[in-house]
Amino acid sequence: MSRERAVSMNAAAADPFLQAAIREAQKGMRHNHGGPFGAVIVHAGHIIARGHNQVLKNNDPTAHAEIVAIRRAAARLGRFDLDDCEIWSTCEPCPMCFAAIHWARIPLLHYGCTRDDAAAIGFDDALIYAVIRGEAGVEPVTRLQLGRPECLALFNEWREKKDRQSY
Amino acid sequence: MSRERAVSMNAAAADPFLQAAIREAQKGMRHNHGGPFGAVIVHAGHIIARGHNQVLKNNDPTAHAEIVAIRRAAARLGRFDLDDCEIWSTCEPCPMCFAAIHWARIPLLHYGCTRDDAAAIGFDDALIYAVIRGEAGVEPVTRLQLGRPECLALFNEWREKKDRQSY
Repeated sequence: MSRERAVSMNAAAADPFLQAAIREAQKGMRHNHGGPFGAVIVHAGHIIARGHNQVLKNNDPTAHAEIVAIRRAAARLGRFDLDDCEIWSTCEPCPMCFAAIHWARIPLLHYGCTRDDAAAIGFDDALIYAVIRGEAGVEPVTRLQLGRPECLALFNEWREKKDRQSY
Repeated sequence: MSRERAVSMNAAAADPFLQAAIREAQKGMRHNHGGPFGAVIVHAGHIIARGHNQVLKNNDPTAHAEIVAIRRAAARLGRFDLDDCEIWSTCEPCPMCFAAIHWARIPLLHYGCTRDDAAAIGFDDALIYAVIRGEAGVEPVTRLQLGRPECLALFNEWREKKDRQSY
């Protein structure tokens, strides 16, 4: 056995969760559910949710692997706070999924390919990151602000709400 | 009638879609579905989908108003590409929702309150924006890269896939 193969097998043995995310991505890609993206969520040493991109299958632009996995993990645990979980993804999450990981309060993210690897096969993660960082030349979404006073009244109602559940 | 009131009524009359987003937010907040956030999606001059935050109701950390509205609009039109739609939201979208608007290819976003207004009532949008911009002091999510070669093999399978549907 060559040293390279031994290292590769070792790496595989050390990362069963990444392997599971890769298998999930392969399944979705081969069934034409969406791009080559998979994710798993681990709680107490066990995978509690798997997800793959199913934008095409479901006609849902938000159905990225991480979003699908987070929704399933939260449903399974019966809570929106996953602060005792970790997530493995085949790719550095796009800003949508990266922010979702924050909202779910998952403290640890493991990923394989980078946002630039994703851009190289046609997925615009890098562009959206550039927009948010204020570094994109042309921005694809025009933003218009209006009616802030009416919306602030809404926010004040929240602030003063007696039975408000902060989260 | 004072000039201020006339302007305010005019503004309300001019922005029926923002008013609809506000009503949606009120409904969700008053039923304890989640925070004071609402969104509507408009196609050909008509509202085709409404959404409000239902993180608490559904135990789903991704169930923000804009995500809910986008999923409903895409399901209603039977396509993931909403490039002929516009979105109205009671608040500047968080990075998750802002990126989702990009993935849905919605070209025009109208919003009321700002990310700082959201932060002021306890929602961490501003922190997540700061993390993505590389301007946060302490980052709540630790990122670890691993297994890029195996994940690149997956991406290559996508690139070479004969029946690949690019999107």
